[in-house]
Amino acid sequence: MVKVAIGIDIGGTNTAFGLITEEGKCLAESSIPTNDYEDVNEYIDNLTKNINKFVEEQEFEVEIKGIGVGAPNGNYHKGTIEFAPNLRWSNVVPFADLMKAKYNLPVWLTNDANAAALGEKLYGGGKDIDDFLFITLGTGLGSGIISNGDLVYGHDGFAGEVGHVIVVENGRKCNCGRKGCLETYASASGINRTAFQLLAESNEDSELRNYTYSELTSKIIYEEAINGDEIAMDAFDYTARILGKALANSVAYTSPKAIFLFGGLANAGQLLFRPVKKYFEENLLTIYKNKIDILPSQLENGQAAIIGAAALVWKNL
Amino acid sequence: MVKVAIGIDIGGTNTAFGLITEEGKCLAESSIPTNDYEDVNEYIDNLTKNINKFVEEQEFEVEIKGIGVGAPNGNYHKGTIEFAPNLRWSNVVPFADLMKAKYNLPVWLTNDANAAALGEKLYGGGKDIDDFLFITLGTGLGSGIISNGDLVYGHDGFAGEVGHVIVVENGRKCNCGRKGCLETYASASGINRTAFQLLAESNEDSELRNYTYSELTSKIIYEEAINGDEIAMDAFDYTARILGKALANSVAYTSPKAIFLFGGLANAGQLLFRPVKKYFEENLLTIYKNKIDILPSQLENGQAAIIGAAALVWKNL
Repeated sequence: MVKVAIGIDIGGTNTAFGLITEEGKCLAESSIPTNDYEDVNEYIDNLTKNINKFVEEQEFEVEIKGIGVGAPNGNYHKGTIEFAPNLRWSNVVPFADLMKAKYNLPVWLTNDANAAALGEKLYGGGKDIDDFLFITLGTGLGSGIISNGDLVYGHDGFAGEVGHVIVVENGRKCNCGRKGCLETYASASGINRTAFQLLAESNEDSELRNYTYSELTSKIIYEEAINGDEIAMDAFDYTARILGKALANSVAYTSPKAIFLFGGLANAGQLLFRPVKKYFEENLLTIYKNKIDILPSQLENGQAAIIGAAALVWKNL
Repeated sequence: MVKVAIGIDIGGTNTAFGLITEEGKCLAESSIPTNDYEDVNEYIDNLTKNINKFVEEQEFEVEIKGIGVGAPNGNYHKGTIEFAPNLRWSNVVPFADLMKAKYNLPVWLTNDANAAALGEKLYGGGKDIDDFLFITLGTGLGSGIISNGDLVYGHDGFAGEVGHVIVVENGRKCNCGRKGCLETYASASGINRTAFQLLAESNEDSELRNYTYSELTSKIIYEEAINGDEIAMDAFDYTARILGKALANSVAYTSPKAIFLFGGLANAGQLLFRPVKKYFEENLLTIYKNKIDILPSQLENGQAAIIGAAALVWKNL
C-alpha cells in the first residue's frame, strides 16, 4: 500500500492528474479534456470517474491521503475558482467543496503557479531556500512567492500575480482588460508580439518574415536566434530587458535569495538567462546587488503542475 | 516593577528611545543626536549612558526584557546596519552585537519602516489583519509587508523597499543613485519636486511661486491646496496618481487586505487618500477590485518608530 496524494492541474485545454508520493515522485499520471463540459458538475463527475478508474488500473494499491488542485484564479482560502478567463464555468466555482462531496478526503486548491512554487520548495531547487520567487513563462506569466519558508497566499488567496504588474504605461493590451502587464512582454505569447513589433520597426532580413502571427512560436524564435537571426536575437534581448527590470523591482518586496524561471520560454536557457541576469543586476538597488540567483526551475516540465498541486497536500497534512 | 522593552529608533538626525510595555504603551521617551559621533563605538557609549541615566531617573522601577532597534538599512538576520546613506558610520555596523556587549539582553534590529509595520500589526490598525502593506510617507518612502501574519524580512533582512521600485523610466534622480524610484514622487520631498515641476509647466497663479525650493514643505503645499490653490491641488493629484498606480501593482505580490499610510504626507488626510484610492482602484487587476482598504495608520506619529522597534522584542520573546 503506497501513500499518495492526488495532484490535479486544471488547464484551459486539459486537466492532468497523477499519484504523487510524499517524496514528490509521480507514480502515474493521466488527463482528460477540461472544456468539454459547460456544467462544472458534469466535469467533476467525469473527472472523478476517470480518476477512480485510473487508480483501479494501477498495478499497485494506494492509500490516498488527500487531493491538491492547481487551477487558474484558484483561491486557497475558500477552495474556489473565481472568474477564470480560460475556463467555461463562470463566476465562482466551489471546486474544493465539490471534490470533498465526492471523496471523503481533505482537498486544497490554489492557483497553478503557486502550486508549482510550492513544488519547487518541497521537491525542487528551493528545498533549502526560505525566500524565493517562482516565475512560469508559459503562454502567460504566472508566479508564486515563498517568504519566511511558506507560500504567500494573500488575504484572499490570490497573491503572486506578478504577470499583471503593469510595466509599460499604456503598453500592450492584456487579456485582463488592462494595458502594459508584464505578461504581454515576458511570456511565450509576449515574445511573439515582440518579434512582430521588431519585424515592423526594422528592415533587417529575417527568417521570421516567413511566418504568420498564428504560425510563429517562441520555439521558432529560439531556433532562429540560435541560427544568428538578428530579429530573433533582438526579440530575446527585448524580452529579457523588460523581465530583468521587472524582477529587479520585484526584489524590493520580499527580497528573495533566488528567482526560479520555469516553463516554455525558460527552456531557451542562456539565450534568456544571460541577458535577464544582466538587466536584472543593472537595475537592482545597491543592497540587493550580486547576491540573488536567477536559476532554472528544477521541476520537470511535464509534471511540475501536478507535483506542485500534490505538494499542497503534503505541506498541509 | 514594570516589564518593558527598550525601543530605539535611529534617524539621520536624532536617535529616539523609549520604555514600551507589552501592550505597546510608551511609558517614557527621550533622544540624543545621532550624527555627533564619527565612530560608532563613541555613539553607542553615549547612547547607552543616556539610556541608563534615563532609566534611573524614572519614578517607576523597570525590568528590561530586551532591546528593539529600528534603523535605516537594518538587517534583521545579522543585526547589522549596512551602507545607510544618512548615517556617518560607513559600511557594515554590527549594531546588535555592540548593544549586546553593553547589556546582557536580547537585541533585535530591523529597518525603521519594517519596525513600524510590526508596531501596526501588534498595536495598531493591523491587529486582526494577517496580510497588509505599511507605507511611511516621510522625507522618503519606507515600507513593511505583513504576510501570513508575520513581517516579511527577506533572505537578507532587507525586504520591503517599495520606495525604490522604479515607477518612471528615466524618471527623477533618487538618492539611491538610480532614476524614477517611487519615493522621488510619493513622499514629502517628492511632492515638493512635483510642485516645482508644475510651477514650471503651468502659468497658473499660485501662492507656491513665493517659496524657494528650500523653503517649500509638503505642509505648505497641503495648506495651499486646502485654500484652493490649483497648483497645490494638482501636486496632490499627481502624487496620488503615481502612488495609487504603484500600490495597485504592489497588490499583485502579496495580495494584502489593507494598505496603511503613515507619516507626514499621510497627515494630509482625504486630500491624499481620496485620489490615491481612486487611482488605485482604476489600476487594479479585476480580482483585487473593491476589497482592499487604504487606511491611515493608527500609530501615533511621534512614537510609532520606537513602539515599532519595541514590538520586535515583544514579538520575538
